[in-house]
Amino acid sequence: MKLCELAPEYIRAIQPYRPGKPISELVRELSLNKDEVIKLASNENPLGTSPMAKEAMIRALSEASRYPDGSGFELKGALSEYLGVPTEQIVLGNGSNDVLELAARIFLRPGASAIYSQYAFAIYPLLVQAVGATGISVTARNFGHDLAAMLDATTADTRVVFIANPNNPTGTLCEGRDLLRFMERISPDILVILDEAYDEYLPEANKAHSIAWLKDFPNLVITRTFSKAYGLASVRVGFALAHPDIANLMNRIRQPFNVNSIGQAGALAALQDVEFVKQAYTTNRSGMLQMTNGLRQLGVEFIPSYANFVSIYINGESVNALKVYKDLLHQGVIVRPLSNYGMNHHLRVTIGLEAENYKFLVSLEQSLKEIA
Amino acid sequence: MKLCELAPEYIRAIQPYRPGKPISELVRELSLNKDEVIKLASNENPLGTSPMAKEAMIRALSEASRYPDGSGFELKGALSEYLGVPTEQIVLGNGSNDVLELAARIFLRPGASAIYSQYAFAIYPLLVQAVGATGISVTARNFGHDLAAMLDATTADTRVVFIANPNNPTGTLCEGRDLLRFMERISPDILVILDEAYDEYLPEANKAHSIAWLKDFPNLVITRTFSKAYGLASVRVGFALAHPDIANLMNRIRQPFNVNSIGQAGALAALQDVEFVKQAYTTNRSGMLQMTNGLRQLGVEFIPSYANFVSIYINGESVNALKVYKDLLHQGVIVRPLSNYGMNHHLRVTIGLEAENYKFLVSLEQSLKEIA
Repeated sequence: MKLCELAPEYIRAIQPYRPGKPISELVRELSLNKDEVIKLASNENPLGTSPMAKEAMIRALSEASRYPDGSGFELKGALSEYLGVPTEQIVLGNGSNDVLELAARIFLRPGASAIYSQYAFAIYPLLVQAVGATGISVTARNFGHDLAAMLDATTADTRVVFIANPNNPTGTLCEGRDLLRFMERISPDILVILDEAYDEYLPEANKAHSIAWLKDFPNLVITRTFSKAYGLASVRVGFALAHPDIANLMNRIRQPFNVNSIGQAGALAALQDVEFVKQAYTTNRSGMLQMTNGLRQLGVEFIPSYANFVSIYINGESVNALKVYKDLLHQGVIVRPLSNYGMNHHLRVTIGLEAENYKFLVSLEQSLKEIA
Repeated sequence: MKLCELAPEYIRAIQPYRPGKPISELVRELSLNKDEVIKLASNENPLGTSPMAKEAMIRALSEASRYPDGSGFELKGALSEYLGVPTEQIVLGNGSNDVLELAARIFLRPGASAIYSQYAFAIYPLLVQAVGATGISVTARNFGHDLAAMLDATTADTRVVFIANPNNPTGTLCEGRDLLRFMERISPDILVILDEAYDEYLPEANKAHSIAWLKDFPNLVITRTFSKAYGLASVRVGFALAHPDIANLMNRIRQPFNVNSIGQAGALAALQDVEFVKQAYTTNRSGMLQMTNGLRQLGVEFIPSYANFVSIYINGESVNALKVYKDLLHQGVIVRPLSNYGMNHHLRVTIGLEAENYKFLVSLEQSLKEIA
């Protein structure tokens, strides 16, 4: 269609993000029973949602006809207190995807470049492409970020660097001191976006505590989400922490009601339920142990992970991973193929509840036999 | 801050959208009792939300930890059936603001221009500015769209025309035949975005039935929302109807999970509750009559409106409207000042329930005495 030719080539060429298969979709496609299906494909919280958050969201529905508070007054106030960051340094988003996009739209455009690691979160290259900037993928080291190489890759055109820590889909971690060193060495004219969506799953000793760096690095943006440990993926709440001037720019171009009321109420209550997040952490730790022990027993290699998922390696031909993925679907187990990351041999599996992990391991053993 | 100077001047200069004052904010500021405050500031549905929609949203909260269905399979299917438009011509958005922004981001950039009417919805110029395009405001005729002048204003650089029908904040309406004529005459290389957020409030005889035009005009995008007559402003669901190729481009750059699960479930159920929307329509009709009769009795001029609000004219010095606005706040009545639209003498008032309209009229009479 002729009108579409007036859209930039970089937009027309985008291959959209492929989400994990929803349970409802699998149920439709394979006529499975909903209760037999387990989804370990989107790094969701297997414990569900804090009951306190759920109650708060039901209460918020009594005002469903009202617009959200576009300023996010209460949620930003609570985050400010919880994190020790002034509200003018907080930007709320429709999931952290939203705040990542805002930062990209401010600093990237045709002629500018952005840097990310090979195997980093698939959203980064898409955001860069959508604004016509050049994406530079820096070869990974052991599936993780090679910070020295990323620093070397910066040019005069580079405006943004994305770092996911821990990284999705590999689960790798940069050490705090290495990140700090990176911040000290990189040009202050380059925005560094540190995506900490999985920070809550880190043991205290592994946390970078990057929030403390904000005062020294006005070019640092930290993003967090309520979609993972807080169990609120459905209602889309994430946020960015940044220098007040950067936060101000992000607030200028965000949609006035980007965060819905139910999400705001849920996130506010979830912040109070410290016990729930603690439980999410411990459940993930023991689940990760169960999962990795089980994988070792099956002789399946995996990338050691600091997050709430683990990416496993399927031996043999590269088509095998896809075969295992499909066979698992027929057994009612949804995991995530990683071919769109150029990881054709890998499948990403979210750590679930004990019974889910068990079902996955049993099903995987079965699938591996099928393809053998 | 030096880094911010690398952001485009057009972004740094944005004056963000100012939403209607939330009830909670007024309660905080003036220490009022929440139950005494009425909000007629954001064109929300005074009947609240369909009970069927509310139940569906509560049910959806049982899966609050899961990501939304990024494809919007069920909601798009229901909309397709309801509107008689194939799903590949539907794009869901985080409110209609989201789909408006997607269209702008595809077709506008520095060097391109967009056309909108003077006094048209304040979001349009902001979207245009955020992508660095040039906004052309065409002088209104009787506060409404001057379609002939808008046609004349197009240039070789024009890529988008925004038309709000009925228009917010003036409530004016373009007739269907005039819009059709506009579509026939405008270059097919210009995208026409017809924003029908208030369509449900129109009597049958006034509806343009523009959906039927989609097959003839691949450059037409129609936007609708669940925030008004459907009473779902809190959960942010809007959509665009467009040629499949345009819809496809919009889907490429939207955030993968732009519409939250609760909104999807609420909108799906709200679509079934035909009776509720009918009631919203009749309540608005009788409320509009009550309001306009009351205004006439007070000798207050207003712009005749086809929507669920009316913009009134405050006599005397232009500062008077602001004085009335503030005095109304102290009486617990929130309306919308329109100075950001260059309408310094006007206040926009949403049609509420009978008791709310009554309270507004009594309070207005009081305020007018105060400033006299």
